[in-house]
Amino acid sequence: MVERCVLPPLFLCLFSFSALALASSPCSIHGLPLVRNISEIPQDNYGRAGLSHITVVGSILHGMKEIEVWLQTFSPGTHTPIHRHSCEEVFIVLKGRGTLYLASNSLGKYPGRPEEHFIFPNSTFHIPLNDAHQIWNTNEHEDLQVLVIISRPPVKVFVYEDWSMPHTAAKLKFPYYWDEQCYQELPKDEL
Amino acid sequence: MVERCVLPPLFLCLFSFSALALASSPCSIHGLPLVRNISEIPQDNYGRAGLSHITVVGSILHGMKEIEVWLQTFSPGTHTPIHRHSCEEVFIVLKGRGTLYLASNSLGKYPGRPEEHFIFPNSTFHIPLNDAHQIWNTNEHEDLQVLVIISRPPVKVFVYEDWSMPHTAAKLKFPYYWDEQCYQELPKDEL
Repeated sequence: MVERCVLPPLFLCLFSFSALALASSPCSIHGLPLVRNISEIPQDNYGRAGLSHITVVGSILHGMKEIEVWLQTFSPGTHTPIHRHSCEEVFIVLKGRGTLYLASNSLGKYPGRPEEHFIFPNSTFHIPLNDAHQIWNTNEHEDLQVLVIISRPPVKVFVYEDWSMPHTAAKLKFPYYWDEQCYQELPKDEL
Repeated sequence: MVERCVLPPLFLCLFSFSALALASSPCSIHGLPLVRNISEIPQDNYGRAGLSHITVVGSILHGMKEIEVWLQTFSPGTHTPIHRHSCEEVFIVLKGRGTLYLASNSLGKYPGRPEEHFIFPNSTFHIPLNDAHQIWNTNEHEDLQVLVIISRPPVKVFVYEDWSMPHTAAKLKFPYYWDEQCYQELPKDEL
């Protein structure tokens, strides 16, 4: 798909540029290296069995204001809560298969009847603003691994216990919604 | 890293939910399916030999306002222009190796002395706002493939021919900066 080509003159020129600096990837934010190995970033499951969540780049550690990127892995049969939020969200499925449940009348009293979309390796989808959704690993044998991109972090979410019930929690900030017990204990300014 | 667990009761409950709808992934924006196979999305090189650019999700086709995601592949020896922009940008290296050149005094007359950062498979980095940067595939044998995430599309960029010269073009919108001839022909309202 991508053509091979000979090195252009600018390439040779750049490497002979005497003022070029060699840097060991320092980063001014929180002393983290600029280039990071994703496999060395700590993961957490936020009390949710079968979840691995890695913040690839985020608001707290890296000072991001407009984009946050997560790598999430769901073991067979595990899932996100039913939830909605007003930020944009993009998914890229890196491996595994599963199902996206999506209800488009989320601003009503409850989400109601969700549509079911099959998701598969190398697929992508984005969630319309404020549509209630849930991702399930419906494959019995494989992990489901997705790259998740959200705008305007930290994400604030409404969580539902069921598609036919009003949301159970007020506006929550990630990662609290992963822990269904947690929102009861949140200080008011987190709601 | 991710625990395996038995299917929770909610999982069984969800699949017996009689109101659940089966959908063939319709999308209200431009009639595109909601779940898309990335390998079936058209690619372009914008006149730049050795580049493959795929807009995974974007402002024009999908109505995104806060996030745009690209999959870019650079054949050995190829590179982006030297450029800067005021949006946030995150890279995830899917395969291959290369070099990020980054200059942090980009609001001066010219970028000046860039730092050199080695990038590798499964690495991630983000570009500080307005820092001039350039990505090179410096590996002679492998393609370099990166996932690129930008905020507030369409991205507006300043392009430099050299690290020691002022930028050559006024504010440009992607994809124009890929084609070095193109900005001369742009209508004024695109600048």
